[in-house]
Amino acid sequence: MRLPKGATLTVVDPCGEQVSDLFLFAADDHDEWFSSGRTTDYANTIYVGPGSSLYSNRSRVMATVVEDSVGVHDLTLTPCSQDTFDILYPDLGGAEHPSCFANLAGAFAPHGISPDRISTTLNVFMDVWTDLDGELHIDPPPTVPGDRFVVRAEMDLLVGVTACSAEKSNNGRCTPIDLRVDA
Amino acid sequence: MRLPKGATLTVVDPCGEQVSDLFLFAADDHDEWFSSGRTTDYANTIYVGPGSSLYSNRSRVMATVVEDSVGVHDLTLTPCSQDTFDILYPDLGGAEHPSCFANLAGAFAPHGISPDRISTTLNVFMDVWTDLDGELHIDPPPTVPGDRFVVRAEMDLLVGVTACSAEKSNNGRCTPIDLRVDA
Repeated sequence: MRLPKGATLTVVDPCGEQVSDLFLFAADDHDEWFSSGRTTDYANTIYVGPGSSLYSNRSRVMATVVEDSVGVHDLTLTPCSQDTFDILYPDLGGAEHPSCFANLAGAFAPHGISPDRISTTLNVFMDVWTDLDGELHIDPPPTVPGDRFVVRAEMDLLVGVTACSAEKSNNGRCTPIDLRVDA
Repeated sequence: MRLPKGATLTVVDPCGEQVSDLFLFAADDHDEWFSSGRTTDYANTIYVGPGSSLYSNRSRVMATVVEDSVGVHDLTLTPCSQDTFDILYPDLGGAEHPSCFANLAGAFAPHGISPDRISTTLNVFMDVWTDLDGELHIDPPPTVPGDRFVVRAEMDLLVGVTACSAEKSNNGRCTPIDLRVDA
């Protein structure tokens, strides 16, 4: 979806314990995209919260977090894809599976953006932490029904956002995500 | 540089305490590039070491770590750029500063690759860790003179690699990195 500069996007978890993957492009120049690395680097933290800037690969602020009832979101992991399920969950036997990556690819395709351009996402409500040995731990999303995360566009944006399709990242079940845009 | 499938690249720190940023593209299709997120995700760790696979955005193995005398490398941070110095080190007053990003951009430019395509790098010998509050800590590289990191290409690659230009990431001084390619 197109999110004009100054508009806000509200991501709501209506049922609780549901992750939502989000990615951004500059609306008028798709070579400018959301950089989890720049966002992490400039804030010196792997987390985002109220007041956080979401930076582009060109080190410009694409969006600002203006409200956040949870405080736990992930900037480390790529959106789940068919490859993710094939590699991490071989017990699924390679069966076709819905994925965040496919959903995001579908959202950006009408804008002429190749799936190859989708990098590491902002994984809203995803509770990923790292122990001192560097091992990743994915805990169930700490959300309760109605929890919300609101960003304001600081430039004209194309936003892709999806409810996560990986059962293991959502405490065993996948539920909807509600979205609202306020101009 | 072009690194053919099966060849190895050895990165040596001849003086100690020096970081080296590395990025990869598939030689024959620049829409396939090194994904720190996929690499982290599939190995379930923020670190790489002997045997680690370096994945592309298409979830294919681009390279394998075959030797590593250090065991500490970073997959979290983007290469330092002029913006990095401007944003993180305002005491420098916006003065022009050499950077990993500019060096990598220069390395890939002859291949027709835009700087916009350079994503989060593998930061060889960089000691970044995260505390339980999510705050990043950058410790001096734990390398001693002669420490090395060797990767084998699993597809034909374009490799960009640079000694890091950020004094604060290299215990206050920037020194060379030596490279060797073995076919």
